[in-house]
Amino acid sequence: MQKFFSQMNATLITIGDEILSGNTVDTNSTFIAEQLKNIGIKTVQIFTISDEVETIKKTLKLAFEMSDLVITTGGLGPTKDDRTKTAYKEYFNDVLVLDEATFEHLKQLFIKRNREYLLEINKDQAVVLSKAYIFQNFNGTAPCQMVEENGKIAICLPGVPYEVKPFIKKQIVPFLQQKFKLPFIESRIISVVNYPESLLANDIESWELNLPKHISLSYLPVGNRVKLRLSASGDNLQDLKNDLEKQVKEVFDIIGDRVIATNEDKIEQILHDVLIKQKLTISTAESCTSGELARLITSVSGSSNYFISGIVPYQTEKKIEILGVDKNLIEKFTVVSEEVAAEMAEKCQDLFKTDIAISTTGVAGPNKGEDGNETGTVFYAIRIKDKTENFKLFLPYLDRGDFVNFVSQKIIQELVTLLVANK
Amino acid sequence: MQKFFSQMNATLITIGDEILSGNTVDTNSTFIAEQLKNIGIKTVQIFTISDEVETIKKTLKLAFEMSDLVITTGGLGPTKDDRTKTAYKEYFNDVLVLDEATFEHLKQLFIKRNREYLLEINKDQAVVLSKAYIFQNFNGTAPCQMVEENGKIAICLPGVPYEVKPFIKKQIVPFLQQKFKLPFIESRIISVVNYPESLLANDIESWELNLPKHISLSYLPVGNRVKLRLSASGDNLQDLKNDLEKQVKEVFDIIGDRVIATNEDKIEQILHDVLIKQKLTISTAESCTSGELARLITSVSGSSNYFISGIVPYQTEKKIEILGVDKNLIEKFTVVSEEVAAEMAEKCQDLFKTDIAISTTGVAGPNKGEDGNETGTVFYAIRIKDKTENFKLFLPYLDRGDFVNFVSQKIIQELVTLLVANK
Repeated sequence: MQKFFSQMNATLITIGDEILSGNTVDTNSTFIAEQLKNIGIKTVQIFTISDEVETIKKTLKLAFEMSDLVITTGGLGPTKDDRTKTAYKEYFNDVLVLDEATFEHLKQLFIKRNREYLLEINKDQAVVLSKAYIFQNFNGTAPCQMVEENGKIAICLPGVPYEVKPFIKKQIVPFLQQKFKLPFIESRIISVVNYPESLLANDIESWELNLPKHISLSYLPVGNRVKLRLSASGDNLQDLKNDLEKQVKEVFDIIGDRVIATNEDKIEQILHDVLIKQKLTISTAESCTSGELARLITSVSGSSNYFISGIVPYQTEKKIEILGVDKNLIEKFTVVSEEVAAEMAEKCQDLFKTDIAISTTGVAGPNKGEDGNETGTVFYAIRIKDKTENFKLFLPYLDRGDFVNFVSQKIIQELVTLLVANK
Repeated sequence: MQKFFSQMNATLITIGDEILSGNTVDTNSTFIAEQLKNIGIKTVQIFTISDEVETIKKTLKLAFEMSDLVITTGGLGPTKDDRTKTAYKEYFNDVLVLDEATFEHLKQLFIKRNREYLLEINKDQAVVLSKAYIFQNFNGTAPCQMVEENGKIAICLPGVPYEVKPFIKKQIVPFLQQKFKLPFIESRIISVVNYPESLLANDIESWELNLPKHISLSYLPVGNRVKLRLSASGDNLQDLKNDLEKQVKEVFDIIGDRVIATNEDKIEQILHDVLIKQKLTISTAESCTSGELARLITSVSGSSNYFISGIVPYQTEKKIEILGVDKNLIEKFTVVSEEVAAEMAEKCQDLFKTDIAISTTGVAGPNKGEDGNETGTVFYAIRIKDKTENFKLFLPYLDRGDFVNFVSQKIIQELVTLLVANK
């Protein structure tokens, strides 16, 4: 029989020194929390701890005090002393046994990879808790172990994100959905641009105060955009949808002129929807963003319907030779200038024959540009049909990686704003 | 007087529902942990908690039980109820006061941004703990507050990564270095390719067991590469360097033929070093990685010395028109094929006149390719001078974003392996 939870809580435990030493970003927790949220399970806390038996045991105890579901990732590698497994064994007062099915699964994996000689070293990975239910790993060696005790569940996963994702999506989430009757969760994300967060909060204050109890609101600022997330939970999905629809309409009456999307979350997905709807194609000519803009636009499934081509004419000479930018223009205004950005967009549109062309030229740093332009200076141009809009940014405090990403996000946001206004 | 720590521990607390709801990846903790590690402070635990006064207070207590330094990020936004500040106030038994210097700083910021009308709403951000030492925020509105009590330190930062990074780098790290005499930390990262982690561990086992006490080893697998990190701490920097040098030489004798770098960590930085040393230039023609390869290569400062240009001929037609790939070849073998990848690399080299050219063609998914190629199929070619090497990958289980990143990392690793072998 399914156990009913009006609100099921989860606690995540990330085990491993890679994250504590700042070497690796913890993307597993974000992914797991998001997937759990989608099926109505709320993540109340995440612990990132070192790979030590006593610490793991102590944290398992803390985690179960706040949640019915605890998911750990990491500490199962073949080179480690399997400290996570030992900690689980001691915490659950269990013994470790060789699981024949897992061993057979490993054997097949190594045969497939022509690495049978590795089997002995990895045999230990088929050793599991005697109480555990096993989910086989189709993308690596360590299986996932699930232990259920006193109505609470612990799930022990490896740490490699490429293994964690399919485990969660294909095995754990369906398992949890089948096992528990969970409340429905619906949310809507309203994207607002050119609206400082504090002013926005001020303007919608009275609406926010009147939100019904089962709907919560959060502000998520991303660059110059603020995402308002309305989240509702309850037993009737259609009711939730209607309730949210009503609130979206109400807030739209107040701030509608600054809203660029009321469904999608990511700016690249919003761009997808707008371009498909308006039947427009796009191309890019990137210097300082060096491929990030193309990557971001094409990170959406279905982008091949509108993204035609991109070029990264990094060296100034190639801007002239391949893209056809006028050499005199570069000499007159320098390569990092409004004039060159505008010409790059125009030439890009000519080259790839698209409705829209975007260009960037700037100095990502940490060194100054060849013509003495300051680090953090960016000129970009957005050409839609026969009209070019020019923009300038100055972001001296961002490091190189953040710089290209911030600029690319911002450009797509400006493009969407223009397209939505033009519609 | 400086207080001496032979080992100073830190605990980080990330406050905010954005991370617990899976909406945002926590990059702050990774950055802070790395920066602290560089000055000899060890991060022993990270808590990610919700924005509630009681939870924050409880976690501050837990954190101080394990560390002398606690850094919190988040929960200071103008739209929030300033719960972090309230929690600090209650935890430290303090009162909140308006700080005139901070208010003046805010005023100047809003004048600079032409947003003086926002001042009243944001005035609350100049309200701080009476005991706190204030670090002004040059990239946002909330200041950083530092409270010292009983020889322990709490640092309260906002949550926006673009604000956190400069705070840590330019203000907090110099402050900690000046205040405490910390041990030196030195590390070396040895990158090994084509060596399964379990086999590698087996082969270097006796060397690993004989490592001196003050040197620790960790294994960090990234795609098909394993990074061995040797980390030493002590009072004499030169001794540490010598000790590490000795160990690197010893392990090099065992696994040297699989080592591609003994200094740098990131594969794109290793590529930088190899290309600068061998005086080679590079260009890219990307289809399925759609800009990520160019972005990754140019993410290194100084990459303009060797990266000449990239092209993303996403649409098949553009591969023919702009890059000059033979139409018949595409018809015969389909666009996702070894033959087309090889021709793309050759044409890319012709177009941009570089020593090296790399090409990718494949199906990022989630849908099949236009010619029925399976999702996850990638052909790539690496052309160095007049020789092309062809490669195939099949990665059906990765999602779109992971796919382009994994493939790009893998390609750069293969390129480095080829260049190091050719030297």
